[in-house]
Amino acid sequence: MIKKMIKIAKGDEKAQLVFKNANIINVFTNEIIAGDVAVYNGRIVGIGQYKGEKEIDLKGKFLSPAFIDGHVHIESSMVTPSQFAKAIVPSGVTTIIADPHEIANVKGLDGIRYILEESDDLPLDIYVMLPSCVPATPFENSGAVLKAEDLEKLIGEKRVLGLGEMMNYPGVVNGDEDVLEKLTLFKDHIIDGHGPIIKDKELNAYVVGGIDTEHECSTVEEMVDRLRLGMYIHIREGSAARNLTELIKAVNKDNLRRCIFCTDDKHPSDLLKNGSIDHNIRLAIKSGVDPIDCIKMASLNAAECYGLKGKGAIAPGYLADMVVIDNLEDFNILEVYKAGELKGKDKEALFNLENRDNSRMKNTVNIKKVQEEDLQIYLKGDKANVIKLLPHNLVTEKVERKVMVKDGKFIPSKDIMKVAVVERHNKTGNIGLALVEGFGLKNGSIASTIAHDSHNIIVIGDNDRDMLLAIEELQRVGGGITLVSKGEIIDTLPLTIAGLMSEEPLHKVNDKLNNMLNKAYDVLGVNEYIEPFMTLSFIALPVIPNIKVTDMGLFDVKEFKFIDLSL
Amino acid sequence: MIKKMIKIAKGDEKAQLVFKNANIINVFTNEIIAGDVAVYNGRIVGIGQYKGEKEIDLKGKFLSPAFIDGHVHIESSMVTPSQFAKAIVPSGVTTIIADPHEIANVKGLDGIRYILEESDDLPLDIYVMLPSCVPATPFENSGAVLKAEDLEKLIGEKRVLGLGEMMNYPGVVNGDEDVLEKLTLFKDHIIDGHGPIIKDKELNAYVVGGIDTEHECSTVEEMVDRLRLGMYIHIREGSAARNLTELIKAVNKDNLRRCIFCTDDKHPSDLLKNGSIDHNIRLAIKSGVDPIDCIKMASLNAAECYGLKGKGAIAPGYLADMVVIDNLEDFNILEVYKAGELKGKDKEALFNLENRDNSRMKNTVNIKKVQEEDLQIYLKGDKANVIKLLPHNLVTEKVERKVMVKDGKFIPSKDIMKVAVVERHNKTGNIGLALVEGFGLKNGSIASTIAHDSHNIIVIGDNDRDMLLAIEELQRVGGGITLVSKGEIIDTLPLTIAGLMSEEPLHKVNDKLNNMLNKAYDVLGVNEYIEPFMTLSFIALPVIPNIKVTDMGLFDVKEFKFIDLSL
Repeated sequence: MIKKMIKIAKGDEKAQLVFKNANIINVFTNEIIAGDVAVYNGRIVGIGQYKGEKEIDLKGKFLSPAFIDGHVHIESSMVTPSQFAKAIVPSGVTTIIADPHEIANVKGLDGIRYILEESDDLPLDIYVMLPSCVPATPFENSGAVLKAEDLEKLIGEKRVLGLGEMMNYPGVVNGDEDVLEKLTLFKDHIIDGHGPIIKDKELNAYVVGGIDTEHECSTVEEMVDRLRLGMYIHIREGSAARNLTELIKAVNKDNLRRCIFCTDDKHPSDLLKNGSIDHNIRLAIKSGVDPIDCIKMASLNAAECYGLKGKGAIAPGYLADMVVIDNLEDFNILEVYKAGELKGKDKEALFNLENRDNSRMKNTVNIKKVQEEDLQIYLKGDKANVIKLLPHNLVTEKVERKVMVKDGKFIPSKDIMKVAVVERHNKTGNIGLALVEGFGLKNGSIASTIAHDSHNIIVIGDNDRDMLLAIEELQRVGGGITLVSKGEIIDTLPLTIAGLMSEEPLHKVNDKLNNMLNKAYDVLGVNEYIEPFMTLSFIALPVIPNIKVTDMGLFDVKEFKFIDLSL
Repeated sequence: MIKKMIKIAKGDEKAQLVFKNANIINVFTNEIIAGDVAVYNGRIVGIGQYKGEKEIDLKGKFLSPAFIDGHVHIESSMVTPSQFAKAIVPSGVTTIIADPHEIANVKGLDGIRYILEESDDLPLDIYVMLPSCVPATPFENSGAVLKAEDLEKLIGEKRVLGLGEMMNYPGVVNGDEDVLEKLTLFKDHIIDGHGPIIKDKELNAYVVGGIDTEHECSTVEEMVDRLRLGMYIHIREGSAARNLTELIKAVNKDNLRRCIFCTDDKHPSDLLKNGSIDHNIRLAIKSGVDPIDCIKMASLNAAECYGLKGKGAIAPGYLADMVVIDNLEDFNILEVYKAGELKGKDKEALFNLENRDNSRMKNTVNIKKVQEEDLQIYLKGDKANVIKLLPHNLVTEKVERKVMVKDGKFIPSKDIMKVAVVERHNKTGNIGLALVEGFGLKNGSIASTIAHDSHNIIVIGDNDRDMLLAIEELQRVGGGITLVSKGEIIDTLPLTIAGLMSEEPLHKVNDKLNNMLNKAYDVLGVNEYIEPFMTLSFIALPVIPNIKVTDMGLFDVKEFKFIDLSL
């Protein structure tokens, strides 16, 4: 293999493939160099003037190393890894660092293995950081508990790089034993961080714990503080969190090498609208950053951060993962080559997905039969703690409200309705109940198996019958999102893979979602300032302020404890 | 361990040691940040405001990460690794990437193991690149032959990083099997290069072979060509090769990250005169490069190149290898801390060397008894091929000369004398003989066991008796350098360790050498434009143009073959 590559590089033999007349983007020297790129067996063997059995004349177009998404949860796309590949490879992304945190909360190690196996034959190299926080908190029941000894089983697996985002930053800073056990286990691997806000001595403590990266920065100050301590910073542009325009201000030639790009969470509509890491690059170029530096953050820097030798540049010995671009201002992705093969062109994927067997990730809705009685909320008086939703915000407000009560039972009104979190992994029968204000729904119910981070069934409604029906529908389809009104299923998006992902292509999932979103507003009357599916998916996450509900009950995030519904 | 570090970082417990009021050089952001550095168990745990059981007030002095020599042959210092540490730690160097090529040519794997073992307890971290070319050429007999299968035995050893400088670049480019075997074996490790001059397609071939670094660049063009292909470039400032002033012109903010510093070969006098990597830094600063970028090349960049996690910066979790500097113009090294302990101050080493057992590297002069007859050169006529030495140059000229002959035997004259290379490892009795012009020596002889790269005995003289005496003296002391005149030993520097290194401190070796150098000029009458010891040590190296002699005979480097002495 090396022998053949040397012969071709030397010009003694023709290359299999030569990209002729390219303007090659050199991320080592920030130059654009006119020349040919010779490829053999998926790798670049020479740059200069070469002849090939096959030749592709680029006629002066730009040839860039393909892009790396430094931190992404595939599950947020609501499609499988292979469908995700079809969606993002045409954007020029041929490598991602995935944190399968969501599927691990449902299926544990098997979920992580599924991500690895399902991506084994894709033109997208999926590396995995092992989820560090499953469950995310002790205040909920997830489908799995991953201790250090469990994660250890996957160390050494191909494409497993290290420990995923350590969101339990209080656990690090306070030196919790189970957290330290994980940090110690991965001390010679890369460990991703998730420790926003903390600073000064606590930040030193977090870094000395072994945390290498951070993708949660939202201000220049946070970013610079972390760069100074040697962290790699993921500049994130996702769906919910969009930090690039702010953070890019902190980037300069001196600190650039430790800046990389990521999407973290990107929903179907945004992926379809503006792509993946190519969007980060375009935004950064618009912000005035040297385009080659932007490409560098999207390629070489991420490869160095995660120790991916032979990735992130166009140079001899490197993988021929390359992107053809029209110009460095608009930065339109014309063609995408993975290991020298054309896999994306004009925003379309050029590969097929066959032989996918996803059966082991199906049938993950495992609940005890729920009765109407199980959804009853009994109050001591007529005053209750209520979760108030705020417009366009995942943060909730804790409010006290006088509510309608009959025979001690809460009666939903136009403003205040019920939400239930039904444990769906281990048939415990656990149901957490709460009252919600500001959702705005009439004669119906919405339910979903996407409910961060444990992904139990979350259901909201103004009547028990429709709520029950929604739960039963999700049980029937094996997870997903459903809309119910007046005793009838209006529409359902099945998410058969762990209740999180569809096997359908991204655009189909997106069409369905948009359709259902319209029905949620038009038929069910959800408030226009509420995105019902995303809002629902975060009501059960007890780390976002100020009041949430899990399958274990109503949780006051500020006080960090469960509280009664009754006042 | 992590737990304790976190507690200290957080400020819950006092640090063992705190450097107070430092101006801390931050190589991640090119900033100088005033603050304290807290240390526990040899590692940095926090930067900011800290209290320690012990506190050292730096009163605003600069605190820099300690330096890394990216490529060095310890043997060129003519002292043992431990004595070398005493010599360079006060210069701020606490890590070196050593290529024990010389000792490996004498003692093979045992020589490499000796370097590792002898440096196990030093305040200098010695990493080893395994010598790739032992012997350096097939045209000489060395003390060992290291094939891929031999090198394989040391992969995985602590502090062994990869494959040392691949000076057989024709072998790479031509795809020689034994070279490819080594390249394949080390393909997932770092491989150092040594491929000057080659360019274009041959350079591509060299790089695709897996070569990661180059320290032999002497022009900006060579350097930029290699940076473009993704190589790391060692900017060298040694004794014989001094490339920094030229190469530093190629360094800019875009390519800086792949530039590192090295000394390669530095002789005792230069080490004593201007130090080690600190000299590279000073020269680079004088050339107008941002001082923090200079420090970065000497620290973080080298650490990244060789994958030395936790080295090369002042940040939480990093080793407390730090240097106190007075200012960034003169760049005087005031104090050197290794893992938080003061090991160098005012150019003096502050540690002792005890329990060194070097016996296994002694008695390496293993020769058959040499007779006067063995040194006779029989010529067909009175014309001979002669090695002409050039002033201040390791390159020789091939000349034809009419010489004195009696009974077919060459008779030395004032201008043309004899040189012999006596195989000294395996008692083969091999002796290579040649004629040398331009050395200038009368009534005497000089001999040395430093004779690149096989390190046989090389002896020059104008009479056989003194030449024999010199050979016998080196046999007696177990290797070294000796001066003989008129049947008497004038002086000898014993190099008892493999015939290459002394166990004495560097300054003693240097004093002795200077003394002997003076005697070589004054007593023996060596030409003033010839450095006799260095010149001798390169006469047997058949890769430097144009004519050399090994234990196997006279070698025409241009024709790349052995030739007759007679014309």
